[in-house]
Amino acid sequence: MSIQFQIEATRGSARAGNLITPHGVVETPVFMPVGTLGSVKGVSQDVLEELGVEILLSNTYHLFLRPGVDTVRKMGGLHRFMSWDRAILTDSGGFQVFSLTELRKVSEEGVAFRSHLDGSAHFLSPEKAMEIQIGLGADIIMAFDECTEYPVDGARARDSMELTLRWAERCKKYFEEHKNEVPWRRVPTHSAAMQSLFGIVQGGMDPELRRESASRTIDIGFPGYAIGGLSVGEPRDLTADIVFSTLEHLPSDQPRYLMGVGTPEEIALYAQAGVDMMDCVLPTRAGRHGLLFTSEGRINIKKKEYAEDQGPVDPACGCMVCRRYSRAYLRHLYASGEPLSAVLNSVHNLAFYLDTMHKVRRDLALG
Amino acid sequence: MSIQFQIEATRGSARAGNLITPHGVVETPVFMPVGTLGSVKGVSQDVLEELGVEILLSNTYHLFLRPGVDTVRKMGGLHRFMSWDRAILTDSGGFQVFSLTELRKVSEEGVAFRSHLDGSAHFLSPEKAMEIQIGLGADIIMAFDECTEYPVDGARARDSMELTLRWAERCKKYFEEHKNEVPWRRVPTHSAAMQSLFGIVQGGMDPELRRESASRTIDIGFPGYAIGGLSVGEPRDLTADIVFSTLEHLPSDQPRYLMGVGTPEEIALYAQAGVDMMDCVLPTRAGRHGLLFTSEGRINIKKKEYAEDQGPVDPACGCMVCRRYSRAYLRHLYASGEPLSAVLNSVHNLAFYLDTMHKVRRDLALG
Repeated sequence: MSIQFQIEATRGSARAGNLITPHGVVETPVFMPVGTLGSVKGVSQDVLEELGVEILLSNTYHLFLRPGVDTVRKMGGLHRFMSWDRAILTDSGGFQVFSLTELRKVSEEGVAFRSHLDGSAHFLSPEKAMEIQIGLGADIIMAFDECTEYPVDGARARDSMELTLRWAERCKKYFEEHKNEVPWRRVPTHSAAMQSLFGIVQGGMDPELRRESASRTIDIGFPGYAIGGLSVGEPRDLTADIVFSTLEHLPSDQPRYLMGVGTPEEIALYAQAGVDMMDCVLPTRAGRHGLLFTSEGRINIKKKEYAEDQGPVDPACGCMVCRRYSRAYLRHLYASGEPLSAVLNSVHNLAFYLDTMHKVRRDLALG
Repeated sequence: MSIQFQIEATRGSARAGNLITPHGVVETPVFMPVGTLGSVKGVSQDVLEELGVEILLSNTYHLFLRPGVDTVRKMGGLHRFMSWDRAILTDSGGFQVFSLTELRKVSEEGVAFRSHLDGSAHFLSPEKAMEIQIGLGADIIMAFDECTEYPVDGARARDSMELTLRWAERCKKYFEEHKNEVPWRRVPTHSAAMQSLFGIVQGGMDPELRRESASRTIDIGFPGYAIGGLSVGEPRDLTADIVFSTLEHLPSDQPRYLMGVGTPEEIALYAQAGVDMMDCVLPTRAGRHGLLFTSEGRINIKKKEYAEDQGPVDPACGCMVCRRYSRAYLRHLYASGEPLSAVLNSVHNLAFYLDTMHKVRRDLALG
């Protein structure tokens, strides 16, 4: 049984739904916290559960390098390795290979690159990316795609899109032949459950190429579709234009995933536009740098003005950090370099992101 | 109402008791986690509560520099500032001044020193150390003492002991005159509760000086006594000799606190010898470095041999880390530099220390 998507309520393009995965139901639209290396930085799995996280994202590229897919597979897959029984999505490694590695060489076969950690040589192909993601065993895995740089000329954008389409076909073929190898299918309760492979729409910043990419990716056929290749340095307005125009070409009855976006304002905007799934490192990364998202805007907790501020980070927030700690204490932790600073800031920011999505869902449910 | 100490069970020199503080009952013998700057490094207050921590220690010297006593006092005292409603003990700053600062100058009046953070000039005297600790508002505060270096000659050891005794008298005098100024006495539920000031026995590694220091500190009169000036580089056997001989000179009906000690074996040993309270940074510091204490000895989680070890850190431990995560996962977090590594390692080590004391108490209660 592959993933199922049930739409519960709609308004205009927006919809609230349930994504039924082998590891539980995910209410959409959903924000997925990023656990790059099988850990959301500084936040324990207990706290993620308490925050109501139903799905998190982990990065194939990083797990491929450390601890390696063989280790994770032997440990029973990523869910068991990190002791997380709820849903997981892994990206394909495509974006990281293009953003983190050096001496990268793209061919029809795949991408040769050197590790950002130690310079060691590796090769990722559509088949290899599938093999790794099946071994990791996320509930949703992603096709291996090429991300084009920004700006890019028309010929390069088309060539790259065509390559991504050919890779998508190879991904689907490998996946269909090997999807029974996912580690958790050995567990009786999951024996009928299957991973799902999502396709990725590319096409740079050209709406017509995006339309064609969407159409031809849909022809290949996936249970869900992502919009990739954004947040690569383009202006925010252009991102929005491409998202809005691409959404029109995606099936209305299947989940739509916008990769690597964005700020709280953006995730609310795109959820209203009909995106069902989003992920971003911003809440945790910003938290580690003392930047906190609140209903009254962003605050930089390192500022002197918070040194004796007894109020919570966000008076409108009911998260475990806002219920317990003052801005003064959080400012002190940050200023003193205390490790608890990153923990608490990340927890609050994740709560704020999750709450932002919760409000969109609630408004949709109320009609 | 000052602190009360009730002995519930004894065996030989060891005793199990209850320390009744303005912020709850502390079962003794007790290990006190160290929250240097008002935070046990990486571990949130919720988790400390879940671990059963009834008292923690915070460092006057560090809080004096950051965020400063005025800020903490304005925030309602340390309990309210860090949102911790259980007991707190602060040290006097004496040990830190002697171990961390440069250009230190000791006079009859006090100690002039420069901050280890920015080189700024400060002065601590017995009166100032009391003023700060009253402002921080811990349940138990410590007399300002001089720590002698190791080794030390006889004349210097005696002079230092005499100075500590004169300082102890000045601490008591200031404390008695100002103890009503503790911030939380403004809270109705705490209006009758008082801070308690403990005396500190010094005397270097000379049992006779220790006896004299104990006797004359008791003559000044405190509701509890600490053994200070150990773990300054002396051999472990010598530490034990001094602890055992000094304990004989301390009142049997009052709490005895051994400062800054030690390993799990040492805290068990000294609890059996009749020490009621201990503190040490070891569980959290070792945790940050991947060193884990277990019922089968210490393990270094960074070792390759744990890379695919599906067992818990300690099969005999029921802590939240051992219940949920494998050695393989903890090894991966450490090897990958994930911030969750220090968090989970610290939580397990604290659980192990607390459990060590719990077993001593249980054995005493069972007679």
